[in-house]
Amino acid sequence: MKIIFSVGIDIGGTNTDIGLVDSVGNCVSVKNIKTEQYDNAEKYAEDLVQTVKLLMEQQQIDSISGIGIGAPCVNFNEQIIDNASNLKMKGKIHLKSLIQKHLNTEVVLANDANAAAQGEMIYGGAKGMKNFIMITLGTGVGSGIVIDGKILHGADGFAGELGHSILIPEGRTCSCGRKGCLEMYVSSRGILQTFRELTKKYPENILCSLPNLECKQLSEEARKGNPLALETYRKTGYYLGIALANAVNFSSPEAFFLMGGPVKAGNILLEPLRESFNKHKLFVYKKEIPILESSLNTNYAAILGAAALTRKNYEF
Amino acid sequence: MKIIFSVGIDIGGTNTDIGLVDSVGNCVSVKNIKTEQYDNAEKYAEDLVQTVKLLMEQQQIDSISGIGIGAPCVNFNEQIIDNASNLKMKGKIHLKSLIQKHLNTEVVLANDANAAAQGEMIYGGAKGMKNFIMITLGTGVGSGIVIDGKILHGADGFAGELGHSILIPEGRTCSCGRKGCLEMYVSSRGILQTFRELTKKYPENILCSLPNLECKQLSEEARKGNPLALETYRKTGYYLGIALANAVNFSSPEAFFLMGGPVKAGNILLEPLRESFNKHKLFVYKKEIPILESSLNTNYAAILGAAALTRKNYEF
Repeated sequence: MKIIFSVGIDIGGTNTDIGLVDSVGNCVSVKNIKTEQYDNAEKYAEDLVQTVKLLMEQQQIDSISGIGIGAPCVNFNEQIIDNASNLKMKGKIHLKSLIQKHLNTEVVLANDANAAAQGEMIYGGAKGMKNFIMITLGTGVGSGIVIDGKILHGADGFAGELGHSILIPEGRTCSCGRKGCLEMYVSSRGILQTFRELTKKYPENILCSLPNLECKQLSEEARKGNPLALETYRKTGYYLGIALANAVNFSSPEAFFLMGGPVKAGNILLEPLRESFNKHKLFVYKKEIPILESSLNTNYAAILGAAALTRKNYEF
Repeated sequence: MKIIFSVGIDIGGTNTDIGLVDSVGNCVSVKNIKTEQYDNAEKYAEDLVQTVKLLMEQQQIDSISGIGIGAPCVNFNEQIIDNASNLKMKGKIHLKSLIQKHLNTEVVLANDANAAAQGEMIYGGAKGMKNFIMITLGTGVGSGIVIDGKILHGADGFAGELGHSILIPEGRTCSCGRKGCLEMYVSSRGILQTFRELTKKYPENILCSLPNLECKQLSEEARKGNPLALETYRKTGYYLGIALANAVNFSSPEAFFLMGGPVKAGNILLEPLRESFNKHKLFVYKKEIPILESSLNTNYAAILGAAALTRKNYEF
């Protein structure tokens, strides 16, 4: 069997990672350019293409199936990045057409969480699934919704923004300007806000005196049995469990997949999450709906997700 | 053009309406049998078929495109009615195969709200739309979600239960056993509960002394300017607006359609609903997403929806 290579590009505010991925999801080579150094999208696209060509030369590969790009603020229907606040390149970036000026290959842009869902479907634990939901937890909360084997984009290309579903009406103020978004409860920022609110209940707890506590340390303390840390994760699991139960009412998925920093807490988060999910799931959904960690290599998950955008699930 | 007739059957706990519908959505003839008189599904199916045949004879129609059935507790994937609490016929009712024993025609079962969505797409205001959501308000709240021109059924055939999305965590107790479901806030029962809660704020209001107030009267009083009635509908619109804004985050629809008793309140409900929706809708959804009343003839909406189940949207 001929190995088909794809390129996956993961665009972050600081770095852009460009990786060459083989048919079964091995990332064989990676390069990096500094996103923050670009305020001109044409120059940026040129340098992306140069890097892709360099990767191909070094690996002695003469053709690729295409380039997939995971980025913030992607409008899938228009295939553009639309006013991403964390990029210096402003306005609408027509990255697909800018890249295709220099390289005759398929280019697909999607937002990070949709790329993650595609990666899980093509290379990861969702292989063979037709209906599932990927939730990405980080400083924000993203989601990629797969229905009938395809990423859901909806009428205007922005479907799957579950991080901004209102979980608690009139709740915590979100950066989107509204109140009570899921993101404000289960992102790393949300978890730390829950922690801060709980410190009042545990004024003597050793964690109260630590400046600049981060989720990683909080989950380590929870694992050691710290009651404040444990309760923080219990509440986080409670919140996310409601959100996932609500998502079931919408699309009735086979499974959920979770990815991102806060998921590294493992069972500290997953146990209360599953408990809350099972408590809040409507009784008509009788089959078990597993909540799973992404099975993609965390070092390359974003690149794999992007690379998977050029693949169809029926190729396998 | 040859007129294609379909049969639509609307199964309620008390009555079953059986109607003959022409290609463009005119319900040309209707008959009725008493659901509550049946505890045997085989006999029920036989009588349904007899009624269909009678309708066809009377209208001198020798063929139909199929029979669509809207019912409670339908598992679409299995094409059965599964333990409907409001029917005397218990357990799993294999209505499709029971009907096909007596009549060689296509039979499609769907839950009421999915049938309503299909009716709107084939005969109503959603003609030509590929992505929209139907919300049915009554004693309960149902929903039918259309994605890429097809009703969403999901992995286990029960997708689209937005009435049981948790709107207010730990809120009002729902008949499903959980707390805070949307249904407990915007169904007719939910509206009346909001009313009762608000009576404390308006102890002198004339409505406080009325026994057995119903939504119809409440909306009439609101139209006359009664502040308690108006505030009840403002709160109802507020709640439903959040739920619809959350649904946008999921599937990014082109429009919402509303059907059912409480919708007859018209702008008394729709104005605060649209206000809340626009306030709670995430900013990335820039296109207007209209919230519309169903354009189907309310007398026959359930029959039309059922009849539409045997039609494909690309037939038009």
